[in-house]
Amino acid sequence: MPGFQAAAAACGMRYRNRADLALITAESPAAAAGVFTTNRFTAAPVEICRRHLRHPYGRGILINAGIANACTGEEGLRLAGRTATEAAQVLGAQADEILVASTGVIGPQLRMEPLVQALPELRQNLRADGWADVAQAIMTTDTVPKMAAVKVEICGKMITIGGVAKGSGMIAPNMATMLGFVCTDAAVRPSVLGHWLQAGCRDSFNCITIDGDTSTNDCVLIMAGGHAQNELLDTPDSEPSQRFGAALLAVLLDLAKQIVCDGEGATKFITVRVAAAADQASARAAAFSIANSPLVKTAFFGEDANWGRVVAAAGRSGVRLLPEKTTLFFDDVCVFKFGVPLLDLETERRAAQVFKQKEIHICLDLGMGDADFAAYTCDLSYDYVKINASYRS
Amino acid sequence: MPGFQAAAAACGMRYRNRADLALITAESPAAAAGVFTTNRFTAAPVEICRRHLRHPYGRGILINAGIANACTGEEGLRLAGRTATEAAQVLGAQADEILVASTGVIGPQLRMEPLVQALPELRQNLRADGWADVAQAIMTTDTVPKMAAVKVEICGKMITIGGVAKGSGMIAPNMATMLGFVCTDAAVRPSVLGHWLQAGCRDSFNCITIDGDTSTNDCVLIMAGGHAQNELLDTPDSEPSQRFGAALLAVLLDLAKQIVCDGEGATKFITVRVAAAADQASARAAAFSIANSPLVKTAFFGEDANWGRVVAAAGRSGVRLLPEKTTLFFDDVCVFKFGVPLLDLETERRAAQVFKQKEIHICLDLGMGDADFAAYTCDLSYDYVKINASYRS
Repeated sequence: MPGFQAAAAACGMRYRNRADLALITAESPAAAAGVFTTNRFTAAPVEICRRHLRHPYGRGILINAGIANACTGEEGLRLAGRTATEAAQVLGAQADEILVASTGVIGPQLRMEPLVQALPELRQNLRADGWADVAQAIMTTDTVPKMAAVKVEICGKMITIGGVAKGSGMIAPNMATMLGFVCTDAAVRPSVLGHWLQAGCRDSFNCITIDGDTSTNDCVLIMAGGHAQNELLDTPDSEPSQRFGAALLAVLLDLAKQIVCDGEGATKFITVRVAAAADQASARAAAFSIANSPLVKTAFFGEDANWGRVVAAAGRSGVRLLPEKTTLFFDDVCVFKFGVPLLDLETERRAAQVFKQKEIHICLDLGMGDADFAAYTCDLSYDYVKINASYRS
Repeated sequence: MPGFQAAAAACGMRYRNRADLALITAESPAAAAGVFTTNRFTAAPVEICRRHLRHPYGRGILINAGIANACTGEEGLRLAGRTATEAAQVLGAQADEILVASTGVIGPQLRMEPLVQALPELRQNLRADGWADVAQAIMTTDTVPKMAAVKVEICGKMITIGGVAKGSGMIAPNMATMLGFVCTDAAVRPSVLGHWLQAGCRDSFNCITIDGDTSTNDCVLIMAGGHAQNELLDTPDSEPSQRFGAALLAVLLDLAKQIVCDGEGATKFITVRVAAAADQASARAAAFSIANSPLVKTAFFGEDANWGRVVAAAGRSGVRLLPEKTTLFFDDVCVFKFGVPLLDLETERRAAQVFKQKEIHICLDLGMGDADFAAYTCDLSYDYVKINASYRS
């Protein structure tokens, strides 16, 4: 993408024989914004990003995989700050123009020496097409690298938005943080960039769940360089700005769905839509109650079209609903209508067929209003237990 | 227990070659009370109990295992009412003196004929020591029957409180409802009985979690016959009444812990205590956030003393906490102090030792106030996935 370069290197801070350090740079100071974890235990790099974004322009993002730098107290904060300073020096930038992110085990301090020693090599590796290397270097329990990009015309100029992400459980304690890094050559005012990043994350990364856990390190960062030379997007309200927001959402949602598909032990991708809820909060709460239910998720794994677990999970969500208005579909098969299941053999057969698919769409219609929400999740398999039970052994 | 009889029989409504119908009777109308599921999809027998308890005296409780009679509409309600009528006829009681409970698959209607045909045999089987048969007959995915009893002196009279329970996941859709039935020979006014049952359930059954799911059929019923001839407990405030409440809690907590030990696939019993929280709601929310976290539960299964997952689960609970005031113990081993982990080898070794135990006590001290709450849970194992993925196959 014009105006940006990317690179990876192996610093050996914790992993051996693999790239574990990544750098994304902007040719000149780019508008920058971030969205961060709501976990009360916030990792040091998240805190550093928040501080640096008070000056909302960035020259680079430095990411390390292996050590999360979370629960590391004042010393962790000092070290996170120092990584930014060191990277700034190598790039000829100001420290607060560098954003930092970490993923890996919680607790240990960063090892500065290997990181600092790898910085010159990292700078040398920078190239316009280095994104795949970055996507690879930031992986921990991920099994595949995650990238997405779109092009869209804005005010007569073709602009590009592209990004990488990592994540496969929703939590950091042992290396399953969700991180996303997006760059665009569009010209966007920082506050507008922040607006669309917030909105986009709400409708993408905040719609997915692997296991309901969130991480100490979760963050999504964006830089907008302006090389596309479009007229500056300086308000969220204009048509071009909204078109930019939609394109950004497409990239974020693509990345978010890739994370679900790569969910720890996942064998299926499931869309849980709650339709006709009384309000948006209810739709969301019911959808996540279903999407996070271990009983629902094991039923998907077992290919058991268990409508009872789905309606019971909605029933316990605290959301206002009436059984006699509630209807459930598995894909286009209605299995539960106005509070009563359809138990004929043909329905059972068709529902069983749906559950054999790799992708399943379930829709619970509450008949209470017109709010709608879709959550994205995966099934709960033996391998989820295996991956998470044996992590440190 | 003086004044009560119990029995089981095999009616074959869904299971073959096992008792699946149970009856508990009171010699004369006994004070009665119940606590029911908060799930919006309420099973028909729960609705019938609510109606019958408007007249808070009972002569009998009839329980069937195999079909839950949930999500069965008006017809289900009619059938649940009819089981009460039929049982009343056989016992020479009024219909509204009979309480009913069901556990099993959601959706199908009760099969009345086998049930009605078995009632005379059930009555014939009634005996003072029939409780073990009841505990056995109400099992579904349970692997062991669950019973508990205490004796306590009240106003110079020795009274007995005894009960049975079933449950091994927290949800009904496929037979893992939580049901509890308690009888006592104490003389207690119905409203006071209801008060202590509510309070007792709050501090016992509502402190346990297998997978965070609740059922459409969950209920706990109690009858107090008065054969102990103690002075009637007619207020919650008197010392004898509070002693009764404490004894009832002991029985309920014993039963609740037995359910956790029999949790689907459970290999460990875990107490999650949150201490020094700002208020009771915070203590409870943080404890359940930890106790329901799949990442925490798989770590227990893997015997991985993963303090990071515990603090992160508390951190995402939305509860007010400050990392620098937060301390975590595994049994008596402090692994995390004022926001920073203790990473020395000796601590790691001792924590690893704790995680090898069958029973583990974790305590997260928030240092914010003086509220305290303990949740009880089990680990998340391969067998949990196996049991719940392959239920209907």
